[in-house]
Parts: sequence; C-alpha cells; structure tokens
Amino acid sequence: MERYDIAVIGTGPAGLEAAITAKVRNKSVLLIGGKGSSDKVSKAHTIQNYLGLPDVAGADMAKAFLDHATGMGIEITEDKVNAVYSMGQYFAIQCHNGDYEASSVIIAAGMTTMKPFPGEMENLGRGVSYCATCDAALYKGKTAIILAYSEEDEPEAEFLAERADTVYYLPQYEYNGNLSGNIKVTCDVKPGTIEMKDGAAVLTTDGDIFSADGIFILRQQIAPSQLVPGLKMDGNHVEVDRQMNTNIKGLFACGDITGTPYQYIKAAGEGNVAALSAVSYLNELKKAQN
Amino acid sequence: MERYDIAVIGTGPAGLEAAITAKVRNKSVLLIGGKGSSDKVSKAHTIQNYLGLPDVAGADMAKAFLDHATGMGIEITEDKVNAVYSMGQYFAIQCHNGDYEASSVIIAAGMTTMKPFPGEMENLGRGVSYCATCDAALYKGKTAIILAYSEEDEPEAEFLAERADTVYYLPQYEYNGNLSGNIKVTCDVKPGTIEMKDGAAVLTTDGDIFSADGIFILRQQIAPSQLVPGLKMDGNHVEVDRQMNTNIKGLFACGDITGTPYQYIKAAGEGNVAALSAVSYLNELKKAQN
Ligand SMILES: Cc1cc2nc3c(=O)[nH]c(=O)nc-3n(C[C@H](O)[C@H](O)[C@H](O)COP(=O)(O)OP(=O)(O)OC[C@H]3O[C@@H](n4cnc5c(N)ncnc54)[C@H](O)[C@@H]3O)c2cc1C
Ligand SMILES: Cc1cc2nc3c(=O)[nH]c(=O)nc-3n(C[C@H](O)[C@H](O)[C@H](O)COP(=O)(O)OP(=O)(O)OC[C@H]3O[C@@H](n4cnc5c(N)ncnc54)[C@H](O)[C@@H]3O)c2cc1C
Repeated sequence: MERYDIAVIGTGPAGLEAAITAKVRNKSVLLIGGKGSSDKVSKAHTIQNYLGLPDVAGADMAKAFLDHATGMGIEITEDKVNAVYSMGQYFAIQCHNGDYEASSVIIAAGMTTMKPFPGEMENLGRGVSYCATCDAALYKGKTAIILAYSEEDEPEAEFLAERADTVYYLPQYEYNGNLSGNIKVTCDVKPGTIEMKDGAAVLTTDGDIFSADGIFILRQQIAPSQLVPGLKMDGNHVEVDRQMNTNIKGLFACGDITGTPYQYIKAAGEGNVAALSAVSYLNELKKAQN
Repeated sequence: MERYDIAVIGTGPAGLEAAITAKVRNKSVLLIGGKGSSDKVSKAHTIQNYLGLPDVAGADMAKAFLDHATGMGIEITEDKVNAVYSMGQYFAIQCHNGDYEASSVIIAAGMTTMKPFPGEMENLGRGVSYCATCDAALYKGKTAIILAYSEEDEPEAEFLAERADTVYYLPQYEYNGNLSGNIKVTCDVKPGTIEMKDGAAVLTTDGDIFSADGIFILRQQIAPSQLVPGLKMDGNHVEVDRQMNTNIKGLFACGDITGTPYQYIKAAGEGNVAALSAVSYLNELKKAQN
C-alpha cells in the first residue's frame, strides 16, 4: 500500500491550506473530504473578513480555494474517514471506500457539537459501528439497526440489506424514501440509550425498543475522540498547542475542530502551521530511521 | 483626545487582518504603519501558499490586501510607534508624529532579530532614547549622539541640531549625505557598550569613545520589550496564548512577532483571532464600567 507523507482530513479552509503548504514543501499528500470544499465555505452568503478576498460570496470563495489546490496538482479523494489508528511509525486511515496509510495525519474536520448516545462509546466496535458498507460482509443472515441522518444513507441501508436478514432503518431526518422488502423503516423515533444484552445490541427509544445483532450510527459528523482513539480533548475541541500538535505524535489538528473563534482565516492559518509541523515531524522521523 | 477602541500597530498581513476584523465588528480602529503594507508583502517575489491567491506576486498581494482594507473605510496612519504604555483602563501610544489613546492595542509589528547593545535597556529613558524629534526640545544647548540606520534619519539629525549644541552622527548604513555644521559625522564605527558616567551617556565603539548628554538609537525596528515596557517575552518573541493574549490585559499580539512559522496566512489568521479577543476584552471593560 502506498504510504503518503501527510494525510489531511477535511476540505474546508483548514484542510485545503494544509494541503497546499504540504505540497509546496514537496510532500506527498492524501486529501480526503468533499470535492466541493466544505458546505460552510460553498454555502456561505458574503464574507467580509478573509484578507485579500473582499466581499466574496461563499461559492466564489470555494472556487478560489479549490482552483488554488487543483492548480498545484492536489487531488481530493472523495471519501469519509471512519477512524484513524496510530501504528507507531505510521497511521492507518479507515475510510468508507477504502483504507490508506500515511506517516502523519492532519485533522481538519471542522467542529462538531455531536454528543454520543449513552452506551454508544462503551460498545463501539462491539455492537456499535459507524459504517454499514464496511461491515456488511459480517451481517450475512443477521439483523441490524441503522440510525440514519440523511438520504445518502438509504443506498447504504440497501447494500447492507443485500446481506442481512432484516435491517431496521430509523431516519433522523425528513424521510421521503422508498426503502422496502427486508428494510423496516420506522420514522419519528428518538434514540435513547444503547446496551448490549445477551450478545444483542438493544436500542431503547422514546417509543419502541429495537434489538438486533448490531447498530449502525451514520451521523454526518464523527466526534474527534471517536475518529481517533486516544485523542485528547479540551471540552468539545481537540487539544492542541501553538504548533498544532495534539497529544499523539505525528497527528496534528487545525481549524474549527481546535476551538473558537470559528473563522475562515483562523482555520487557514492553523492549516498552514499544522502542515509545517507535520513537515518537521517527517524530518525527525527520517533522521530517527537512519 | 479621541480614544480609539482598538489600535493596531503594523500594516503587514497580521495588522491588516486585525483591522478588517475589528471593523466588521463595528469598532473604531487606529491602524498605524506604512501605507504600502509591509516590505515583506510588497517586495516578495511569488507566493504559493496563501489560500485563495494562487501564485501571486508580492506587489499584487499588497494591492489585494490594501484594497480590502480601504474598501472597508480603513485608513492607515503613516507613523512609527515608539512606545505603548498601559494606563490601566486605556493605552497611551507614543508615535514619531504624535500621541494617541486606545482602549486596547494589537501589536502586529513583525519579527525582529535586533539585539540591544549592552547597557541600552538599563539606561532607557535616562540617557538612551529612540526618537530624536520627540525629545529635541530637551536638548537646548546640549550634546547628543545619534546611532543612525537609514537616510531617513538625516532630517531627524538636522531637526535635533537646530536645538542642540553638537550632534555626533554615527551612520550604521552606507552614508552619502551632506550633514554639516554642528553635526559631526563619523562613519564606520561599530557601537560597543553604553554607560552613564557622571550624568553623561558614554558610547564605547571599536575605535573612539563618544560622550554626550544623551544617545539616540534610530533603529528601523524596536524590540517588542522596548516598545511595550513590561511585555513578557519568550526568547525573541512576544509570549501569547492561543487567543493572542499577552501578559498585559487588553494588549494582544499577532503574526511573526509571536513566533514561527513566519508565514503570511499564519500572521493573518492570528490577526483575526487577536481582533476578536480585543472585541471580547472591550465588552468586558464596558460591563465592568457599568
Ligand atoms: C452560516 C455561517 C456563516 C459563517 N460566516 C463566517 C464569516 O463571515 N467569516 C468567517 O471567518 N467565518 C464564518 N463562518 C465560520 C467558518 O465557516 C468556519 O470557521 C470555517 O469553515 C472552518 O473551517 P474548517 O476547515 O476548520 O472546517 P469546515 O469548513 O467545517 O470543514 C471541515 C470539513 O471536513 C469534513 N469532514 C468532517 N468529518 C470528516 C470525516 N470523518 N471524513 C472526511 N471529511 C470530514 C466536513 O464535511 C467539512 O467539509 C461561518 C459559519 C457559518 C455556519
Ligand atoms: C524574502 C521573504 C520571502 C517570504 N516568502 C514567504 C512565502 O512565500 N510564504 C509565506 O507564507 N511567507 C513568506 N515570508 C514570510 C512573511 O513575509 C511574513 O511571515 C509576514 O510578512 C509576517 O506578517 P506580519 O504582519 O506579522 O509582519 P510584517 O509583514 O513584517 O509587518 C510588520 C509591519 O509592522 C511595521 N512596524 C514594525 N514596528 C513598527 C512600529 N514601531 N511602528 C509602526 N509600524 C511598525 C513594519 O515596518 C512592518 O511593515 C517571506 C519573508 C521574506 C523575508
């Protein structure tokens, strides 16, 4: 497997700036995220305070950012990262559509106010999972619950249902789909707690109780502490120092995910610093290996 | 005297971004520095890594930055700050061409590798000074030494010589001027140490010893600890936290002056954070006064 020098997660201003800085420093870069930058860039109205781009519409800012990156030969790998594991000398990056390796990682995934359900963290990897397509093969003849957060989760449910016996699909969004067959859709249920009981994953909601072999939570955003096991947090944010080091050597964070203020140019500035810190780390790593 | 909400010192990317962010937040802003942005912007060749301005020449970047600021109604006060004094509820800002007051101050003066001469800091304000025109009135019938660093210092020497008895002018640059009369020019002397002896300022150089009532050091850059008495340093840099607070309440720093990496977008990002921290500080101040 190709091992990238630097993997960058997120294509908002923090991730894009990190990627171009890494590229200027001649590092191989894996940039994972949406091809159209982040919604917070592309869908913004007018931005006043990004020095050099006065009074710019979000869509134009997204274009300027993406043109900059593609002009430098940076490609965006359109995917969603489920987990990042530190393997000592490198990181394993598990995505929806595949796995990757990189010597260093920059987390620029934006901020999330997401709170895990009671029982979620405790049962992660043993009953609770975030990627239905990744685990589908394990569900032959079994049952699964899906907590779904957007219509993009519907094909994922169908894919799982090709293997699984029964899929309980609980949309947490305005559902207009037509899932059917062995996919049982129940709308308007509010998830409460998750427990493992006699080998089954049990979800208690404000109405029914659902029980299955496993439960998939397909939130758009994953809490940083779930994305990277062992990552030290400071409240809802990743704890970093002024060089954007996290508590995990070789792993850096930048942008909204590191704390307030939530601002484009603060995010971009931190992306630049994170990338240069990653470059220093790679140099150290090389020296240590010689 | 008008009291500004926020005074920003320096018109590089850090200072300009701080000023536009303060303006977006409806604060009155005093922006002090060169009208053409900093030389490090305007004279740079091509810049690759400022997200949104790909492959941009320094002159074009300076234009984009300045257009942004002037488009928002921000004026640059072309002046040089000699000292900033904390007066409790506000700051007094002493410049070459005048004095100002502001409730909060953002230092975006770039980095300096300047090292004070032995004896310089110890005798600051009692024999050693940085602004000849400011103190000229005190030198009637007296003598002064000027350590000069550019031709712009020549008119300053002439102004001082109109009051003073004798001015010893020691150019630390390639001197092509025609200062004369009671201005005694000595080229190619390397300053050593400064002492106060029997009320006289004594400068020992690699050749002669000069003695006068006072000594003016007209360096282009002033060390931050001289600019702001009591400012806590971390080596050559101003010590800041992640919100760009210095050890002095209401005084913030951003850009190269706060440490590496020395980069445009890092400087701008920090300018944004410093301005928002100043805005929070002003809100607190208002609350405390009510
Ligand atoms: C309505 C609105 C208006 C705003 N106006 C302004 C303004 O005028 N000025 C200003 O300075 N700021 C403004 N902001 C704030 C600004 O949008 C953010 O500060 C900025 O976008 C943060 O950049 P970022 O790169 O850290 O994160 P984001 O822009 O949030 O980008 C993070 C990206 O990472 C992706 N991601 C997350 N998890 C994963 C994963 N597991 N795998 C792959 N990708 C992932 C996300 O989908 C997202 O695309 C505004 C925000 C909002 C919501
Ligand atoms: C040759 C060169 C090439 C570079 N190339 C790149 C590059 O490709 N990419 C990149 O990201 N960075 C680059 N940099 C670094 C970049 O120039 C700096 O990081 C950036 O300019 C710092 O911005 P700043 O606002 O903190 O300070 P500066 O840009 O240094 O601005 C500070 C301003 O404050 C003024 N000032 C200082 N003291 C006072 C005072 N007492 N009163 C009033 N005004 C004062 C100064 O005169 C100056 O104009 C380069 C630097 C150099 C020298």
